[in-house]
Amino acid sequence: MSNAINQSPKAVENWMENLKQSKPKVTKLQFYYHNSRNPEMNLSAVQVATAPVFSDQPPYFGVLTITDDPLTVGPEISSKRVGYAQGFYATSSLEEVSMLMGVTFIFTDGEYNGSTLDILGRNPIGERYRELPIVGGSSNNNMIV
Amino acid sequence: MSNAINQSPKAVENWMENLKQSKPKVTKLQFYYHNSRNPEMNLSAVQVATAPVFSDQPPYFGVLTITDDPLTVGPEISSKRVGYAQGFYATSSLEEVSMLMGVTFIFTDGEYNGSTLDILGRNPIGERYRELPIVGGSSNNNMIV
Amino acid sequence: MSNAINQSPKAVENWMENLKQSKPKVTKLQFYYHNSRNPEMNLSAVQVATAPVFSDQPPYFGVLTITDDPLTVGPEISSKRVGYAQGFYATSSLEEVSMLMGVTFIFTDGEYNGSTLDILGRNPIGERYRELPIVGGSSNNNMIV
Repeated sequence: MSNAINQSPKAVENWMENLKQSKPKVTKLQFYYHNSRNPEMNLSAVQVATAPVFSDQPPYFGVLTITDDPLTVGPEISSKRVGYAQGFYATSSLEEVSMLMGVTFIFTDGEYNGSTLDILGRNPIGERYRELPIVGGSSNNNMIV
Repeated sequence: MSNAINQSPKAVENWMENLKQSKPKVTKLQFYYHNSRNPEMNLSAVQVATAPVFSDQPPYFGVLTITDDPLTVGPEISSKRVGYAQGFYATSSLEEVSMLMGVTFIFTDGEYNGSTLDILGRNPIGERYRELPIVGGSSNNNMIV
Repeated sequence: MSNAINQSPKAVENWMENLKQSKPKVTKLQFYYHNSRNPEMNLSAVQVATAPVFSDQPPYFGVLTITDDPLTVGPEISSKRVGYAQGFYATSSLEEVSMLMGVTFIFTDGEYNGSTLDILGRNPIGERYRELPIVGGSSNNNMIV
């Protein structure tokens, strides 16, 4: 999950390999994650609660959003859909735009069709690379984890 | 956690045994999970936030509910209480009724009295069987995990 | 995470050592966790959604709060800041004041500067000691987990 993945997946890979907690056994998944709050165009995220005093400008502290974001094989929203990211984002930093996310990735196509990954963690969207923990998963077909 | 558990716990067991990620060491817990949004009768769940445009009909996308649901030994709400499921549900699918749930099961009776299990994952309630990951737990008495 | 840590970290340690699930390898972190809902003084938590019928008196069932709480080396808010706890609390008990918390601890100083820990679990704040599961973490520097 990275701002840079559109430009260079290799850079993400290099970064991952240099993390101390990397284990030899790794599954690499590449996909594009789309988030639209526009009711006119592929809406996939709705704001459900806010702390009005803070939420009208960055860092948007105190906004809860519920999402069903599409995952695609390519950077274009029109490219083949491979899954969904369903869950919530809570903007929870007073200093930068950063979200505590709880989402399940549901893969609906390809090798991992039927598998899910559950994620809970912080996504400071201003940072070029972000690392979020996978806390669970399931599989009706091939195993990811 | 299954729609079918009321009719046939054995069916759930069979399903679990056929999952590729099943490990030889397994703890089997059977209980009934009640969720009531009726203020007149055993209320255990309250809607706290919504995206009004979407939330008035299925799939109820964008509703956040906070819960303290009773767990009982039998299918009747009046049967012996063995614990609680405390946390939240976020309806997070644009196509079916499905929730991202974050709950702690607190066992208050029997062999596992004092133990907790923490769960984060997706619950697509229209599916007959659902598998949700246990992400943590604690125990003052006998260990579940 | 304990009410008692201000008075006696040793008591927490004793408690931890007696937990059956303790493993020989342990990392001990001691810090103070501040939560202020006062807009006039170090505000770090905002209420974003409520179930009005329940939320105006204990156990405050049905309140969602988003937080960016400071972590410090000492019990005074003015002591050196070592990190933040960003995420949400959902008050989710009908009988006591208890929260389902999802937060990331971000350490910003000292040996673990750059490390994070992700937590999802129940915090019954009336209990003297509370045990919450760490469900993930990351590290750019020294590893905690």
